[in-house]
Amino acid sequence: MPNITIEGPPIKDLDVKRRLVKGLTEVAVEAYGLSAQKIRVVIKENPPENVARGGQLLSDIKKAEAKLKGG
Amino acid sequence: MPNITIEGPPIKDLDVKRRLVKGLTEVAVEAYGLSAQKIRVVIKENPPENVARGGQLLSDIKKAEAKLKGG
Amino acid sequence: MPNITIEGPPIKDLDVKRRLVKGLTEVAVEAYGLSAQKIRVVIKENPPENVARGGQLLSDIKKAEAKLKGG
Amino acid sequence: MPNITIEGPPIKDLDVKRRLVKGLTEVAVEAYGLSAQKIRVVIKENPPENVARGGQLLSDIKKAEAKLKGG
Amino acid sequence: MPNITIEGPPIKDLDVKRRLVKGLTEVAVEAYGLSAQKIRVVIKENPPENVARGGQLLSDIKKAEAKLKGG
Amino acid sequence: MPNITIEGPPIKDLDVKRRLVKGLTEVAVEAYGLSAQKIRVVIKENPPENVARGGQLLSDIKKAEAKLKGG
Repeated sequence: MPNITIEGPPIKDLDVKRRLVKGLTEVAVEAYGLSAQKIRVVIKENPPENVARGGQLLSDIKKAEAKLKGG
Repeated sequence: MPNITIEGPPIKDLDVKRRLVKGLTEVAVEAYGLSAQKIRVVIKENPPENVARGGQLLSDIKKAEAKLKGG
Repeated sequence: MPNITIEGPPIKDLDVKRRLVKGLTEVAVEAYGLSAQKIRVVIKENPPENVARGGQLLSDIKKAEAKLKGG
Repeated sequence: MPNITIEGPPIKDLDVKRRLVKGLTEVAVEAYGLSAQKIRVVIKENPPENVARGGQLLSDIKKAEAKLKGG
Repeated sequence: MPNITIEGPPIKDLDVKRRLVKGLTEVAVEAYGLSAQKIRVVIKENPPENVARGGQLLSDIKKAEAKLKGG
Repeated sequence: MPNITIEGPPIKDLDVKRRLVKGLTEVAVEAYGLSAQKIRVVIKENPPENVARGGQLLSDIKKAEAKLKGG
């Protein structure tokens, strides 16, 4: 009963979620040699003001990048 | 200071959450021999389009089941 | 590529989130001797009816405390 | 398919683990109204030098307490 | 910077781990439209006495199944 | 009762762990305005063959880097 948790930005398109869980499950089936029915996947969607890299919120990084391009 | 994280479908009834955390805490107190005050519980509620089994979103599995019954 | 997940009550002030991720990243940089760019931080905000201590929901503990103070 | 993760100190007695997962599962079955077969439980065992409270490692807290009692 | 955590039984063959993280990363790249360098994967290996389904430890379920086959 | 989980490479020096949990706790105390006693920290140590970036295990990335430098 492996469990995959994938955390990333929000995904608006339900078809993208469908392909995501199908793809992750197939890879896990291959690795563990277990039936797909034993694989659980959870998608966690984090807003960009709750994730940071290099000590900066992703929401701030994006704004700074947009300014650079716009300027 | 054990920590219990329980992930499942959304729970609408607050009394169900009350019984859930009380019950989980009692089981942990028994197992670890620690006071209830040291046990932390977190409930995580996942929407059915963010959880998959067998490579299929729970929201799709439920729709397919509803169709079968309805048909 | 260390990852820090911090779970706590909701944080409304974006500046508090900024200081939080900056501070956590600096501490991790110091401990691991890695560049800040390799440190990822995720903030998870739990509503008080989804967290318990001593077998009681935080939302109920707060209500009881407010009553005591009010009485 | 709810999932329960319980993190705490190492548990040496296998019977304690058995009662722990049985108890947690029964509480979840009651709360979600799902069959026990849908409940997954994972026990995570953390060594006391990897957990802290009040900014102090549990291993250090325990040593300090033992000294107090011994002295 | 999405993060994938995959929890399952121990994997002894390093090549299986290589294929696992490569496959999971490719699926995430496709879903999020981000470069592979932004995808982090962590494999967590749980011993069978620390995972349960239906309220029973996997280690006990396996023993019972082996007995059935053997007898 | 906020909880911080920090995942990274193994830390051999106990003093580094002490400074790490002390520093993370201080940052959380500042952000949440709660006493240090309410902050829990857990350190998770992942071996380099269980973490990947860009679809490659850290253990393989390190080997390739060592070769480049050595050659």
